[in-house]
Amino acid sequence: MKKKNKKVNAAILIIGNEILSGRTQDKNTAFISNWLNSKCGISVNEVRIVPDIEKEIIKSVLELAKKFNYVFTTGGIGPTHDDITAQSISKALKVNYGYNKEAFTILEKYYGKTKFNDGRKKMAKMPGGSKLIYNPSSAAPGFIAKNIISLPGVPSILNSMIENCKKYLIKGSKIHSKTLNLFTVESNIAKHLTKVQKKYKKFVDIGSYPFFRLGRVGVSIVSRSTSKIKLQNVYRDIIKVAKEKKIKILKT
Amino acid sequence: MKKKNKKVNAAILIIGNEILSGRTQDKNTAFISNWLNSKCGISVNEVRIVPDIEKEIIKSVLELAKKFNYVFTTGGIGPTHDDITAQSISKALKVNYGYNKEAFTILEKYYGKTKFNDGRKKMAKMPGGSKLIYNPSSAAPGFIAKNIISLPGVPSILNSMIENCKKYLIKGSKIHSKTLNLFTVESNIAKHLTKVQKKYKKFVDIGSYPFFRLGRVGVSIVSRSTSKIKLQNVYRDIIKVAKEKKIKILKT
Repeated sequence: MKKKNKKVNAAILIIGNEILSGRTQDKNTAFISNWLNSKCGISVNEVRIVPDIEKEIIKSVLELAKKFNYVFTTGGIGPTHDDITAQSISKALKVNYGYNKEAFTILEKYYGKTKFNDGRKKMAKMPGGSKLIYNPSSAAPGFIAKNIISLPGVPSILNSMIENCKKYLIKGSKIHSKTLNLFTVESNIAKHLTKVQKKYKKFVDIGSYPFFRLGRVGVSIVSRSTSKIKLQNVYRDIIKVAKEKKIKILKT
Repeated sequence: MKKKNKKVNAAILIIGNEILSGRTQDKNTAFISNWLNSKCGISVNEVRIVPDIEKEIIKSVLELAKKFNYVFTTGGIGPTHDDITAQSISKALKVNYGYNKEAFTILEKYYGKTKFNDGRKKMAKMPGGSKLIYNPSSAAPGFIAKNIISLPGVPSILNSMIENCKKYLIKGSKIHSKTLNLFTVESNIAKHLTKVQKKYKKFVDIGSYPFFRLGRVGVSIVSRSTSKIKLQNVYRDIIKVAKEKKIKILKT
């Protein structure tokens, strides 16, 4: 029975000045979170975005690795001076930062011996004891060191690698989600939602999100749970409220 | 002279399960960061995304408020049960959580006495001693309590309010930015960039970001500094490298 409700969680650590400055819109959080949820039953419970500064990376990675089952980092594993993720994680874990033989071989084969310059060689340097996350699109592998998984920042490359993380992850119970779109305003149903949330406190998370559609305002009620039955009950309770209050339900 | 290089920084705390689950793409980080940079000379140095859980909000808000000049929170100031930002910040600051008279008056006027129900009244509750951030689009104000500024999560509403934060903020030196797009790969210029970065270590931050354009790969070199002169020098140094290595520069 224990297996039926196994909670596994993760954090994401986005490393990069370009995200903090607003120059680049982060897309990796939503992608990784959706993938972990749907494919692995893993919830993302915290995200941090930090600059390319060693002590900041070390501090956050240690805090998150202690608090959650897994930490996914994105960014900072390329060839340039601002790519300091691998060396920062090595310091955080107090392990050697050096060439991973397998990664070195992969990259040497990919670029050819003559074009395998220092910048490219740097991408084979990792925390000692790392296992590789293979990269089908641009060769340079990510890595897993203890419970920290490091992926590149470029979304298309990260997306191509994510399936290769699966074998290293413990699966949690699938998190189901049900959305009900009501043509009303939040304040009209706030009291009733509070009651339903209290009733299913430990089992279902109910979120309420305003939307604007077809020139009308509405509220999306999103319920999430590992139990399909509890989710169905919440859904029924909220539909009952909507009917009592003569609120139109948007069919999707 | 001191005034000439005044560093003011901020953190953003995104509060909301919907962002963590990947259901909603956060757009507020890039917007706030760009606005702070360009209008106030304030750098965003850390972002966190946390769930609608009181103790998580309290922990993060206290850590960030201590570490940075300002903390901007987004989300969780609406009328429903999952909106717990104001009460969490009250607890964090150990001040009373109750009606802000001015906010109460604004909302009562906006909704009219008969439609001013409990959910809507909740939006007038804030940490004691808060000052208001006026909301021109949907009335419910944000607030500033000590160095913590709380805004709503809906981007269109947040965007309409941001200018009203200005009067509470100390301005920093404007952070200038210059981008050079080179048709090359990162590993080809990594060594040279490292040299330039070392030369201007304390004054200019140089970032390197791969791009794909017109079917070709390239690298955007983004330099940021409060000194226009130093920025110009970095730009010149990198153009020199590009010319020596016969790298084509993309005119933008």
